[in-house]
Amino acid sequence: MVTIRDVAQKAGVSVATVSRVLNNKGYTHEDTRKLVNDAIKELDYKPNEVARSLFKKKSRLIGLLLPDIRNPFFPELARGVEDEMQAQGIHLIIGNADEKPEKEIEYIQTFKQNNVIGIISATNQAETKLYENLSIPVVFLDRTTNSHPSVFSDGLEGGKKAAHEMIRRGSKRIVLLRGPIELRTAQDRFKGAVDELCDANVDFHVIPSSFSFQDAEKMAKTLFEKFPETDGIIASNDLSAAAILHEALRIGKSIPADLQIIGYDDIPLSKLLFPSLSTIRQPAYDMGREAAKLLMKTINNEPLVQKNIQMPVTFVERQTTRKVEKNG
Amino acid sequence: MVTIRDVAQKAGVSVATVSRVLNNKGYTHEDTRKLVNDAIKELDYKPNEVARSLFKKKSRLIGLLLPDIRNPFFPELARGVEDEMQAQGIHLIIGNADEKPEKEIEYIQTFKQNNVIGIISATNQAETKLYENLSIPVVFLDRTTNSHPSVFSDGLEGGKKAAHEMIRRGSKRIVLLRGPIELRTAQDRFKGAVDELCDANVDFHVIPSSFSFQDAEKMAKTLFEKFPETDGIIASNDLSAAAILHEALRIGKSIPADLQIIGYDDIPLSKLLFPSLSTIRQPAYDMGREAAKLLMKTINNEPLVQKNIQMPVTFVERQTTRKVEKNG
Repeated sequence: MVTIRDVAQKAGVSVATVSRVLNNKGYTHEDTRKLVNDAIKELDYKPNEVARSLFKKKSRLIGLLLPDIRNPFFPELARGVEDEMQAQGIHLIIGNADEKPEKEIEYIQTFKQNNVIGIISATNQAETKLYENLSIPVVFLDRTTNSHPSVFSDGLEGGKKAAHEMIRRGSKRIVLLRGPIELRTAQDRFKGAVDELCDANVDFHVIPSSFSFQDAEKMAKTLFEKFPETDGIIASNDLSAAAILHEALRIGKSIPADLQIIGYDDIPLSKLLFPSLSTIRQPAYDMGREAAKLLMKTINNEPLVQKNIQMPVTFVERQTTRKVEKNG
Repeated sequence: MVTIRDVAQKAGVSVATVSRVLNNKGYTHEDTRKLVNDAIKELDYKPNEVARSLFKKKSRLIGLLLPDIRNPFFPELARGVEDEMQAQGIHLIIGNADEKPEKEIEYIQTFKQNNVIGIISATNQAETKLYENLSIPVVFLDRTTNSHPSVFSDGLEGGKKAAHEMIRRGSKRIVLLRGPIELRTAQDRFKGAVDELCDANVDFHVIPSSFSFQDAEKMAKTLFEKFPETDGIIASNDLSAAAILHEALRIGKSIPADLQIIGYDDIPLSKLLFPSLSTIRQPAYDMGREAAKLLMKTINNEPLVQKNIQMPVTFVERQTTRKVEKNG
């Protein structure tokens, strides 16, 4: 078995230095740290000391707060967090805040009482003061905030892409769902789409919307009555897009000939819809992994190269949008 | 404010008796218990003592273990558990066992270390010895076992219904997915379907399957090559049915004219598919609520009228099955 002595010998430093690096305590020169870390890697040394110091009197738990486990986007995030945490020997407990601030408060209390070593929060209330006085490291996921490290995807770019792809595929009378007004990620994608729509020679209507499937079902029924001429819909998430698609087919719209639809998220459901849903893909699983890494760095007091990590989004072309004519 | 004294006076018993009833300790005659409980109800007495004794040195937490949060059936169960627990002032932490026994073991440890007052387990390993030596109350959900209280739906009846509805709608060459062999709930529905198929003048093939969408995607590709004459598929869950539906449409099958498909679960996705999926509905949300009630009764040492609660299933007719001719 490889010991801390082997690491010290390999790196050409003292055992105390290796220990300092492992425990992230006291001063060590960057070059020395690199030597030690390289030796650890090369020897495949399993530093029990790290575990011991990191978890001394602490749990091996982190808390993950989700806004709505019934929206399949969030289980994907959770799986990313979970896989990364598992690789580090940490367990994950999940709380479902159900988009209710009082439940969010209760879960944070619960997490604290259970001595979690960190919290990842993907709820909608990230701007509130809830997290400010917490002594536990917090990382926001799928949310942006100035107060804490965060992982989110590029909403502005996502909104732009959705509008751009819809316009170049020929829609002229577009309905744009606004998404939850209190949610910066939703509003980023909304603004991105508006920017792009304003620059193009198209009509567009903005209608308020939430992220809930049930709300979207109701809204879809009135949408086609209010705006019967609509030939393109940019939804604020895939669940809403799915509800709209369903209603459009029910009333006999031909898709994508009469009506194009672009969603947002790329949840697993979206490729299963028929026609399958064109959408803006957020890399949910990878976002979860990044958030977990960021949290572990924060817990270990490692310097953060980036405090806020923005992940790229991509347009996923499926069957609710038309093929691009010529070179688009 | 109503006190324990008021309750005792109203019920015509001593405070000690009320306390015995509240704490469920020592002997109290059934009639006396009823008197006390009626008085509590009538006076709307909030027995802090119960809370105190129940939670003395204990958390207000229960642990919920799910096999796969990415399968939308399980978030529905979780929501039912959560809503019922919240009404009782209890919080829920969720662990995702990811169908891996080692993760299940880890989560049970985590739950224990965090002093949960009870565990609801909806994982696939319910038959193992994992739970036998636990000192914490456990209720199984969506799983049956002889060792612990459980809530599940009537799989035998569900399987029968699926086969019955498919046969009466005219399918003659049926493929039946078996579902996970280690899982009694899956095998109940499998056996129910086999029973019904054996009694009818139809051909049928049984093919092995898991509950995973990814597995079903692969399997669907070979299914239609192996059994091109298939005119009816009974899936072991909705996710598998969705994957098969997708593949069938891709290769140009007309549904339900050429091929009928019946799923199992009725996850929220199923009504969104196009054509929408006919399926056997399990009352997931209500099952979650019942499991939560059963666990709380177990924790409070209340007598269980039923240790194993079987919930009814229903056939949900949608667009992947044909209309019944005549009176079926």
